[in-house]
Amino acid sequence: MADKDEKTFWVGFDLGGTKMQATIFDAEFRPLGSKRAKTKGNEGAEAGVDRIIKLINEAQVEAGVTDKALSGLGIGCPGILDLDRGIMHLAPNLGWENIKLKDILEKALKCPAYVVNDVDAGVYGEYRFGAARDAHCALGVFPGTGIGGGCIYEDRILRGKTNSCMEIGHIQVMPGGPLCGCGRHGCLEAVASRLFIAASAAMAAYRGQAPHLLADGGTDVAAIRSGALSRAIEAGDEAIERIVRQAAKHIGTAVGSVANLLAPDIVVLGGGLVEAMPKLFVEEVREAAEKQALPSMAAGMKIVAAKLGDDATVAGAAAWARRSVEGNGRK
Amino acid sequence: MADKDEKTFWVGFDLGGTKMQATIFDAEFRPLGSKRAKTKGNEGAEAGVDRIIKLINEAQVEAGVTDKALSGLGIGCPGILDLDRGIMHLAPNLGWENIKLKDILEKALKCPAYVVNDVDAGVYGEYRFGAARDAHCALGVFPGTGIGGGCIYEDRILRGKTNSCMEIGHIQVMPGGPLCGCGRHGCLEAVASRLFIAASAAMAAYRGQAPHLLADGGTDVAAIRSGALSRAIEAGDEAIERIVRQAAKHIGTAVGSVANLLAPDIVVLGGGLVEAMPKLFVEEVREAAEKQALPSMAAGMKIVAAKLGDDATVAGAAAWARRSVEGNGRK
Repeated sequence: MADKDEKTFWVGFDLGGTKMQATIFDAEFRPLGSKRAKTKGNEGAEAGVDRIIKLINEAQVEAGVTDKALSGLGIGCPGILDLDRGIMHLAPNLGWENIKLKDILEKALKCPAYVVNDVDAGVYGEYRFGAARDAHCALGVFPGTGIGGGCIYEDRILRGKTNSCMEIGHIQVMPGGPLCGCGRHGCLEAVASRLFIAASAAMAAYRGQAPHLLADGGTDVAAIRSGALSRAIEAGDEAIERIVRQAAKHIGTAVGSVANLLAPDIVVLGGGLVEAMPKLFVEEVREAAEKQALPSMAAGMKIVAAKLGDDATVAGAAAWARRSVEGNGRK
Repeated sequence: MADKDEKTFWVGFDLGGTKMQATIFDAEFRPLGSKRAKTKGNEGAEAGVDRIIKLINEAQVEAGVTDKALSGLGIGCPGILDLDRGIMHLAPNLGWENIKLKDILEKALKCPAYVVNDVDAGVYGEYRFGAARDAHCALGVFPGTGIGGGCIYEDRILRGKTNSCMEIGHIQVMPGGPLCGCGRHGCLEAVASRLFIAASAAMAAYRGQAPHLLADGGTDVAAIRSGALSRAIEAGDEAIERIVRQAAKHIGTAVGSVANLLAPDIVVLGGGLVEAMPKLFVEEVREAAEKQALPSMAAGMKIVAAKLGDDATVAGAAAWARRSVEGNGRK
């Protein structure tokens, strides 16, 4: 192993709405130290940024890696970002606004810092180390409270001029459909997110169509998590299975439409819902996607579950930082 | 001007379903000679390829440019292509199969040849010389018999691993909607192409809702072209205007969905329909796209009509050939 004072170590950070994670990687992207903590966004941005730096420092101690040995840092963030300037313009989940994350972290850790969209970082992680290695084009779809998306194209994270893109949750799939969190109607997210599934499941439970879910998760939309849905299906709540399969089908049709645009060679499905029911999701998404994709697009396209779970984001963020520092040399 | 024997000239070729065009460009992409002819795909691929070479030679004569002076050739083609190997696997409109265009043209003209999707070539032309210059991401949408799409991202044509992509005509916009040419239901093309507009207009004419169209274009779907639609609207056929606006709205919503994926800074609308009614199309597409796009995506996005008309494809194909020969040096 390299001397821990040499500049060969990379920090990956995952800034989530509820929890955050810092991991120190060596030059081969082996994790040497990793720490998690609650984000506590509501304590304000200043306190939050201090907590981020503290968590990185703790991970450094665990890894035995000094500031001097850090080559760079990548941080996966939610919200609206200025990617080049590393500013978090707005993160509604955290209640933070206009945080110059890049500048603050570079000053604190004395190494280059790169701000990345959190879903993009996760998809880049799967592309470099997980389920989508060496794809020409890897599309990631992560159904959760919303539905996140990311795309790695020829070793680049596809992005807008300043902010990230690939908001697959907000393509319209059902004109005149249910209200979406963005204020529009019939977005993919509005008919296939975990939140919509939970709401549909709560209705089924209330109507008496899902006795197991009613006993286990009740009818509170906020309380019906992926695990409860999965257990209800296992226990025989057919209505819940139909609801989840229907949502997965919508995701699959949307993936098929996006495949007609981007011709991904691999589509990675991740997030809590998919982790709880990987077989069901991969099956339904694959079937619907292959139906909607043109034969020339469907031919080369694999659909798989993510492999790295929560670690995808830190690994992807760190690897993206390295790619940004060193350029496209690796390919 | 450079000596016409020096290698500083580029060929752009547009191989269309009904007509084809060869243009010789100098190093500043000024057209020096240009020839058009009917494609006559039904005379077979061998005769067709001979006609392509003959047309290029005629354009060379007009330009006074010998084979020795050609640096490269780009050819925009319909159908399913192998972009790297330059093979036209299948072009249903021409009835051609497995034509090794790259090899044949390189042998005949003694310069490197590049096969590009025709719509991609047109969008690249608009990006280099027309309505979308210097965009970070330019999305092109060309409604015609079908609806073609292309995307230039960071000076690259977005493509699949082997074939082209960006088939915006085949994203699903209306589940359970009308039958599409691809065999699916509710694709954008099935509710917004010129063919669908013509069919809807024919129904309106038949029902007596569009007297001017009935007098001018009749009720034959094949005979109702963009000009007849435009004239009927001018003359006061309100039903036709509503049909065309509705189609443009569908295109706009789809563009808004795609904007949420790719965050284009410019969207170029082209093709015969848009050329016949640029104001109507740009207006409706813009309004619907801005409604569907997230605010962060809509903020930086312009929607404009194409500028180069039919010349976009030859210019884009020639410029793409040069970019392929010389690499990314220009940016």
